[in-house]
Amino acid sequence: MKKLFIENEIEYTGVQLSPHWIYKNYKIQGDAIVSFIGPVCVNLSEMVDIEDVINNEPIKSDKMVNFIIEVFDTNLREAIYRQRLFISIIKEVFETRGINLKRFGDDLYYDNRKLSVSIATKSTVSTLIHTALNIVSKGAPIPVSSFEDMGISDTTCIINEIMKKFCMEVSDIELARVKVRGV
Amino acid sequence: MKKLFIENEIEYTGVQLSPHWIYKNYKIQGDAIVSFIGPVCVNLSEMVDIEDVINNEPIKSDKMVNFIIEVFDTNLREAIYRQRLFISIIKEVFETRGINLKRFGDDLYYDNRKLSVSIATKSTVSTLIHTALNIVSKGAPIPVSSFEDMGISDTTCIINEIMKKFCMEVSDIELARVKVRGV
Amino acid sequence: MKKLFIENEIEYTGVQLSPHWIYKNYKIQGDAIVSFIGPVCVNLSEMVDIEDVINNEPIKSDKMVNFIIEVFDTNLREAIYRQRLFISIIKEVFETRGINLKRFGDDLYYDNRKLSVSIATKSTVSTLIHTALNIVSKGAPIPVSSFEDMGISDTTCIINEIMKKFCMEVSDIELARVKVRGV
Amino acid sequence: MKKLFIENEIEYTGVQLSPHWIYKNYKIQGDAIVSFIGPVCVNLSEMVDIEDVINNEPIKSDKMVNFIIEVFDTNLREAIYRQRLFISIIKEVFETRGINLKRFGDDLYYDNRKLSVSIATKSTVSTLIHTALNIVSKGAPIPVSSFEDMGISDTTCIINEIMKKFCMEVSDIELARVKVRGV
Amino acid sequence: MKKLFIENEIEYTGVQLSPHWIYKNYKIQGDAIVSFIGPVCVNLSEMVDIEDVINNEPIKSDKMVNFIIEVFDTNLREAIYRQRLFISIIKEVFETRGINLKRFGDDLYYDNRKLSVSIATKSTVSTLIHTALNIVSKGAPIPVSSFEDMGISDTTCIINEIMKKFCMEVSDIELARVKVRGV
Amino acid sequence: MKKLFIENEIEYTGVQLSPHWIYKNYKIQGDAIVSFIGPVCVNLSEMVDIEDVINNEPIKSDKMVNFIIEVFDTNLREAIYRQRLFISIIKEVFETRGINLKRFGDDLYYDNRKLSVSIATKSTVSTLIHTALNIVSKGAPIPVSSFEDMGISDTTCIINEIMKKFCMEVSDIELARVKVRGV
Repeated sequence: MKKLFIENEIEYTGVQLSPHWIYKNYKIQGDAIVSFIGPVCVNLSEMVDIEDVINNEPIKSDKMVNFIIEVFDTNLREAIYRQRLFISIIKEVFETRGINLKRFGDDLYYDNRKLSVSIATKSTVSTLIHTALNIVSKGAPIPVSSFEDMGISDTTCIINEIMKKFCMEVSDIELARVKVRGV
Repeated sequence: MKKLFIENEIEYTGVQLSPHWIYKNYKIQGDAIVSFIGPVCVNLSEMVDIEDVINNEPIKSDKMVNFIIEVFDTNLREAIYRQRLFISIIKEVFETRGINLKRFGDDLYYDNRKLSVSIATKSTVSTLIHTALNIVSKGAPIPVSSFEDMGISDTTCIINEIMKKFCMEVSDIELARVKVRGV
Repeated sequence: MKKLFIENEIEYTGVQLSPHWIYKNYKIQGDAIVSFIGPVCVNLSEMVDIEDVINNEPIKSDKMVNFIIEVFDTNLREAIYRQRLFISIIKEVFETRGINLKRFGDDLYYDNRKLSVSIATKSTVSTLIHTALNIVSKGAPIPVSSFEDMGISDTTCIINEIMKKFCMEVSDIELARVKVRGV
Repeated sequence: MKKLFIENEIEYTGVQLSPHWIYKNYKIQGDAIVSFIGPVCVNLSEMVDIEDVINNEPIKSDKMVNFIIEVFDTNLREAIYRQRLFISIIKEVFETRGINLKRFGDDLYYDNRKLSVSIATKSTVSTLIHTALNIVSKGAPIPVSSFEDMGISDTTCIINEIMKKFCMEVSDIELARVKVRGV
Repeated sequence: MKKLFIENEIEYTGVQLSPHWIYKNYKIQGDAIVSFIGPVCVNLSEMVDIEDVINNEPIKSDKMVNFIIEVFDTNLREAIYRQRLFISIIKEVFETRGINLKRFGDDLYYDNRKLSVSIATKSTVSTLIHTALNIVSKGAPIPVSSFEDMGISDTTCIINEIMKKFCMEVSDIELARVKVRGV
Repeated sequence: MKKLFIENEIEYTGVQLSPHWIYKNYKIQGDAIVSFIGPVCVNLSEMVDIEDVINNEPIKSDKMVNFIIEVFDTNLREAIYRQRLFISIIKEVFETRGINLKRFGDDLYYDNRKLSVSIATKSTVSTLIHTALNIVSKGAPIPVSSFEDMGISDTTCIINEIMKKFCMEVSDIELARVKVRGV
């Protein structure tokens, strides 16, 4: 699992959640997590969460940190477990700074307001996860919480910690997989 | 995912981590999580973690709460993700009581001492997880922490909360799996 | 496996055989069988059976009962076994009324004329089955048999029996899967 | 799918339901169905159906025709669908002789008495099905029906018809699998 | 694995590397290898190798023999192993004529110049391989080697040998798969 | 894919072809190829190739170089493709020294005599390959060829070349797998 924080601002529109987007744009080949900051605006036509489409709930925010995780395996259930664990890791990184979040499935809450959006899906060749955290609280269709509310200013630092901890966890899982005998 | 707290004391020896142990003993058919309390003593010959066997580290404790999770699917990597998420859920249940644990992979720490043991493996027909938490700190080969140290007395209550939250998470993951379009 | 008989008349054109069509239109999340009555007209461009496309055999009928089965698993061979078993179940439901059909693969015959059309395919996230039975004998490109020929008037009743028996069989298969030891 | 009727009488004890039993004994390499006639006596220790073990229901009969099907794929759910379809095919073969059986899951009934036993399981390398039909009604722990009750004398003929129809169905499923476009 | 040499000249543009192209055009149902001769011109928009797209390296040649292999299984890694083995087989066929090629991954070299292009990919229902060998050295964007350079005139004969040896290897692999016990 | 040449002489008896043998003995965790030199004597009871057991053909040789490859994935067909490609790589390494071998499936011949034995199988957690090449021609039940016959003295050097080239090929296949778009 390789990792990259992309310095440029990028607007997340949903097109980034497609196979090989990371490779085609950043030449990172294989399983990877990348992150970037920018406004988020996903129209219904681009959404992969059909529940949100049915409920007519597009995703919007003025400034979020976005994570894209691509793993070249096509087990969607495993990808959702990976997503939930990634959400837990984000929560744990905030804890090291004394900030307590609550996790409900793939959602994170700070001060009873939603901090995050997330989805996991699959393509013909891979599974893909998008998770984004509000940096500012403006622009969302519902009241949300954000890095701003928590008084976080070293955004890049926290993003890199999250990616590093996730990559270590994935490596550790691979080691765990090859050290047990069957029963 | 069905759940059961087994009232009887059972000594965990490793034989419980075998396919259909739950079904054969408690007539719960299919994916399930069960828990029971008892001493833990796993000899090297029964251990599935080859790393522990190599390092000659048997597992012993005078009193632990043991969880056995069996899922009738044979993807070991997914089972390890499930195990890690289960560990995160245990941590979250303790947080609701104001007790902060630290998670490193599949280990939980309280007050810098190890609270838990855990392993995930597979059989021909299923994957199996064993996770146990010390109720008392005696009997372990290394200094450990326990429910006793935390001042927890409603053990059964906390066990049921953990199992309930895990079952809800698994249901939620199944719903997430069937609501996204491919990309 | 959830089930629903859709009261509205719907023309089957092939677009119904697509992932999440059931969820998007009827809010049933996950594995499901739905049925509806209506004319059938599948143009070559919408057909998934390439053999029929090669042979230039579009599907047409004035009035059929259509079943759509979606299972969120991507094993096409298993889906075809499921389709054949579904066809057998339809045959068995007719037998309870003293009507004897003949099955050849995924086709049902009454009085030596074809009663049904059926296809099984897969998407990125699921497998899908379409099976339809003629309610009237008009509108088909070849001589066919129909509910009309058999003197069946309680169409809805028979449709619900078929769906119920299929759902029970699927549940029973899940139970069978988790009760056998490996050899 | 190759097929063979074994002329020698063989007592079915459960050891025949093991990987490569067909290959080791009859040099048929790969997916195959074989059949033989003989008494059936499966002790609890040899049974793969844990439900029967729990209920203390060993399998016994003085004379049955036994079918063993081995497919070198390890999807147990698919194997159970295959088993159910095989049971349907047996029923259909009897129908061509004017004998009507009832199917409930993997059981066949004639005259309201059980005609068959069947189980599907998996090994590390394959899935295996055992299905047996009573030739005589003696020796079973419950009242059963048999070929004798139906007045069938050309046992070998009917066995070969069943195997032939099953092999044709399997071939047809393979053809169906490779002729549909994804949706 | 069926095989066919297509007598007509066909320009390879990339559209041939799509599921059921063989079946739709040549009525060969199931796993197959076909070959044809013609110019090759794959525009960037049609290329499946994203590395080549990134490096802006379209594929062109005035005359190549093209092989298309479709296998109805969706394991891409296995398909790449199959591709590499196919390349090894081509090399071995040339050896029987005293011509020594060098293989680097999925590339073949003669006299230090590239003789071949190859790619393996997957669709929703199958994996697909395209491998092509230069018959003439003209038309390629880099210096290449060709049948012409080697003095080969019986092109059809060598193509058929390659396809025959590949089909035999695939059959042999299937036999190998079903004759080993698990460990 | 890690690699290790084990300096100690080891007699290959078949027990080395078991899951985690590499990890338990050499602490290499995960996918790996190891090699060692020693006599080979596999009794029928230890053989995994049932064809050899049926034909009563045990494996014996006074001195062979043995390769064990373990990959933690359970697709046996892919493992056999891997084995065949490994055999091709051995052949290619010899070619760089001007020695021409012939490959038939998983067998290598030098001077029309068999140089190698090889088998691929699977366990609950992995696939395993054993390939061995005669260093001397003595001790085999049939006339064989060997390193001795070829005049090879730098055995260790050639073994390391083979392992290095195989590891490079496996890495290259992983890169190939993640750089193609689906079709």
